[in-house]
Amino acid sequence: MDIYLTQGLHRAVQQRPQATATLCAERRQDWRTLADRVARLAAVLRAHGLQPGERVAVLAHNSDHCAEAFLAAWWAGFAVVPLNTRWSAAELLHALRDCDSRLLLADAAFADQAQALAPQVAGLRALLYLGDGPAPAGMARTEDAMARATPLADQRRGGEALAAILYTGGTTGAPKGVMLSHANLWAAVVARLVEMPNPGYTGLLTTPLFHVAGLARMVAQMTLGVTSVIEAQFRPEACLQAIERHGVNDVVLVPSMLQMLLDHPAFDARRLRSLKRIAHGAAPMPRPLLLRAMQALPWVEFVVAYGMTENAAGVSTSGPISWATHERHAAILSSVGRAGLACELRITAPDGRALPAGQVGEICMRGPGVMQGYWRRPEETASVLQGGWLHTGDGGWVDGDGHLFLADRIKDMIISGGENVYSIEVEAVLMQHPDVAQCAVIGVPHAQWGEAVHAVVVPRPGRSPGLQSLRAHCRTQLTGFKCPASMELADALPLSPTGKVLKNRLRARAAAGCAIQEASP
Amino acid sequence: MDIYLTQGLHRAVQQRPQATATLCAERRQDWRTLADRVARLAAVLRAHGLQPGERVAVLAHNSDHCAEAFLAAWWAGFAVVPLNTRWSAAELLHALRDCDSRLLLADAAFADQAQALAPQVAGLRALLYLGDGPAPAGMARTEDAMARATPLADQRRGGEALAAILYTGGTTGAPKGVMLSHANLWAAVVARLVEMPNPGYTGLLTTPLFHVAGLARMVAQMTLGVTSVIEAQFRPEACLQAIERHGVNDVVLVPSMLQMLLDHPAFDARRLRSLKRIAHGAAPMPRPLLLRAMQALPWVEFVVAYGMTENAAGVSTSGPISWATHERHAAILSSVGRAGLACELRITAPDGRALPAGQVGEICMRGPGVMQGYWRRPEETASVLQGGWLHTGDGGWVDGDGHLFLADRIKDMIISGGENVYSIEVEAVLMQHPDVAQCAVIGVPHAQWGEAVHAVVVPRPGRSPGLQSLRAHCRTQLTGFKCPASMELADALPLSPTGKVLKNRLRARAAAGCAIQEASP
Repeated sequence: MDIYLTQGLHRAVQQRPQATATLCAERRQDWRTLADRVARLAAVLRAHGLQPGERVAVLAHNSDHCAEAFLAAWWAGFAVVPLNTRWSAAELLHALRDCDSRLLLADAAFADQAQALAPQVAGLRALLYLGDGPAPAGMARTEDAMARATPLADQRRGGEALAAILYTGGTTGAPKGVMLSHANLWAAVVARLVEMPNPGYTGLLTTPLFHVAGLARMVAQMTLGVTSVIEAQFRPEACLQAIERHGVNDVVLVPSMLQMLLDHPAFDARRLRSLKRIAHGAAPMPRPLLLRAMQALPWVEFVVAYGMTENAAGVSTSGPISWATHERHAAILSSVGRAGLACELRITAPDGRALPAGQVGEICMRGPGVMQGYWRRPEETASVLQGGWLHTGDGGWVDGDGHLFLADRIKDMIISGGENVYSIEVEAVLMQHPDVAQCAVIGVPHAQWGEAVHAVVVPRPGRSPGLQSLRAHCRTQLTGFKCPASMELADALPLSPTGKVLKNRLRARAAAGCAIQEASP
Repeated sequence: MDIYLTQGLHRAVQQRPQATATLCAERRQDWRTLADRVARLAAVLRAHGLQPGERVAVLAHNSDHCAEAFLAAWWAGFAVVPLNTRWSAAELLHALRDCDSRLLLADAAFADQAQALAPQVAGLRALLYLGDGPAPAGMARTEDAMARATPLADQRRGGEALAAILYTGGTTGAPKGVMLSHANLWAAVVARLVEMPNPGYTGLLTTPLFHVAGLARMVAQMTLGVTSVIEAQFRPEACLQAIERHGVNDVVLVPSMLQMLLDHPAFDARRLRSLKRIAHGAAPMPRPLLLRAMQALPWVEFVVAYGMTENAAGVSTSGPISWATHERHAAILSSVGRAGLACELRITAPDGRALPAGQVGEICMRGPGVMQGYWRRPEETASVLQGGWLHTGDGGWVDGDGHLFLADRIKDMIISGGENVYSIEVEAVLMQHPDVAQCAVIGVPHAQWGEAVHAVVVPRPGRSPGLQSLRAHCRTQLTGFKCPASMELADALPLSPTGKVLKNRLRARAAAGCAIQEASP
């Protein structure tokens, strides 16, 4: 029998009907209430005549109602399309049309935008207001319809059935729809099992539910019977308050969020006594920030996770490390962990050969979390799913104990004079220079070497580092060909909505020759 | 991408190549060695020209070589048929023929029997000697062929592909082959994840690998990187020695095994200091035995599991209970736990309606562990898999917190004068009578009441309880219609190879009217 993502609701209702399922704003819902609301909303969705597997798009901040919409789509046998709330109207319209959305649900923050988009989406049956309070003119409230609805029986559609389409790939070209099945997201639950085995545990959802990390975490908490505290968006003070007020045990943060928490005037470690675990990922964690957080919160275990939308379950995860143990684990603090349960990890050469430990190549993996493919893009699917292996496009290497270290995006790797240069390695050294606040290292075309190492540097306030000073610093730790041959100063680095540096933009700018200092030969 | 049961070997080789994978007799093998041997044995199996999915039968006691044979069959893309070593030649021949076995592997203990069987199995390609030492005449040693073989690449066949056929149902009719896929057995691994999350853990395999409990545990340990100590068969003294010598943390025991351990002259709790957890199941655990074990081993957590071959992942499992906490959990000590992860549990009326908490009905479940069906028996499959639900044939009820309590096999339930009588309830009361060593309660035809309650009693040595004495005892705790209306004394109860009382034999004997005392009206 196939697994279905609403199964955990039935278990929770049978075993702990009155325990807290969700805490959001001032609302507390128990499992019985949540399951009843999901069954009613499922009936509302189905009343619009959708066929099994058709797509229900959601444009909303995180909330209990947003999570209910996802669960209701699954309960009714549909697939959910969680839209990125940071997107432009053009990007949203692309996604809504690309996946043939039949329903669009929007909360108060996005009702206007949704009303502008809806008429442009052919085949859309209805636009529903998922928010609190009165609906804007022209939108029907899901709450009203739910109050009138007869709860639907769970359709228990699962296994290989499509559960979600997550649009990704904003850094180049139009976003592609990653198709994740119930089985894919179940693999994500399994991967998180070891981390939060106990009902009675409380997890904070503050990263967006439209990203795979937030979505997978939400599904895991709902499946395992963990209480979910849901924050609409990440705001440092509200996050601190939520942890303190609800006794949160577990939170996922990207490094910039962790930084904002620690830097906030209201930060006080004593408010975070209930925290047992902070998981981080999505962007490289600067070691000074990690150590600062560990020291400030010595009772918290830190875990890193590495993955991508194309693999719901994540590729690797580390064992927990805390302030007390970090010195013992110093050599692996910059690792992104080891292959997770249900993930076979392999480093491959360009010819597809598996490489031994210690050699850098492309990170490839297979396992039940790997997507079904890109929605209606068989060619792009075939280029990343080869012979059962997901080719991540990330460069990396494993040590003799299977710890994975990231090098670079394969396409960001610099080949200078026939030597491989990993920008991450150079960036880590540059970041130690006292004048450097942020930096990015890219390859730029070079007549003699093929590519040359180029640094884009955001200086610390009031500082203005020069190329020779940076090169002299780099020479103390790097071999000559890895040291930047040219550089430019910038006020900020161009970032994707998830905080990744858009190196293709930097390459374009460098190619245009903006304000570059070059080393003499 | 589909899950495959050899995936854990790749992870273990990448992460802990020199850690101990198996300890068996005097052999210790690390993960690298184990994976290499599996890849070689897979090549040997494939050299016989089998097609993907064809069946490899194994007739052997538990051993590292036996586990390797299972893993090698999966590695090569075949299905394994672990044969019950306690079966008669006729039963073995039925199974070998029924599933079209292409290869038969047998160890030293069963080489003669296998040689007698092999010529009678049409389509069998080869009989291989899986044992140590020289092979009997006419059998090829797998060890010799493995030494010569080039390791095969893992075929990574998984997901819905058939992984194993386990023959079951010895109590009535010819054994049926339960088809378990890779996904089914993976669900069994997931269900055990919470119990043994850590590599570095050591589990003892002493229940037979040809039963679902032993097989699932073996797969889980191999997948999770847990060290497996493997005992050929359960012998109390050897079991005590293995736990002490290898620092075993975890063992599955059926109640009779636990009793034998505690009763053995060599039992000394101090030898079992390393034990963290005893899981029990397969037969009802008498409360006095459980409490005696808890008191003797106060540092051990006891967990009950309830399941059946038709569902590899198990239906329910309890949280751990120890001597220190048993009084707090007194009300649920006789429960078989709550629905496990990935199991939706429901109690149904004969008309298929779901029954509320507190009402007895048939235990039904669905989840990814549920078998694909009975091999080539579509009618019997359809009778137990209805609308996606596995109908277990067991009666039971859940309390308001989802704890499951077993009543009776549905077919063992007695309907007397229109009232339901659960034999388990009557048996529990009879067992408290000072003259009763063992007992079984069945329904026998009765002109007036439809069925009447009949007790088969094995008296304690030197005792000879009479019907009136038993009835008087029962009356103190049971309402009148539940008290036995007739009884017989027996030297022993007929048991299946797994220790279940064969009530159909008792019913046949009672119908023949053997030595029955009947109550006056």
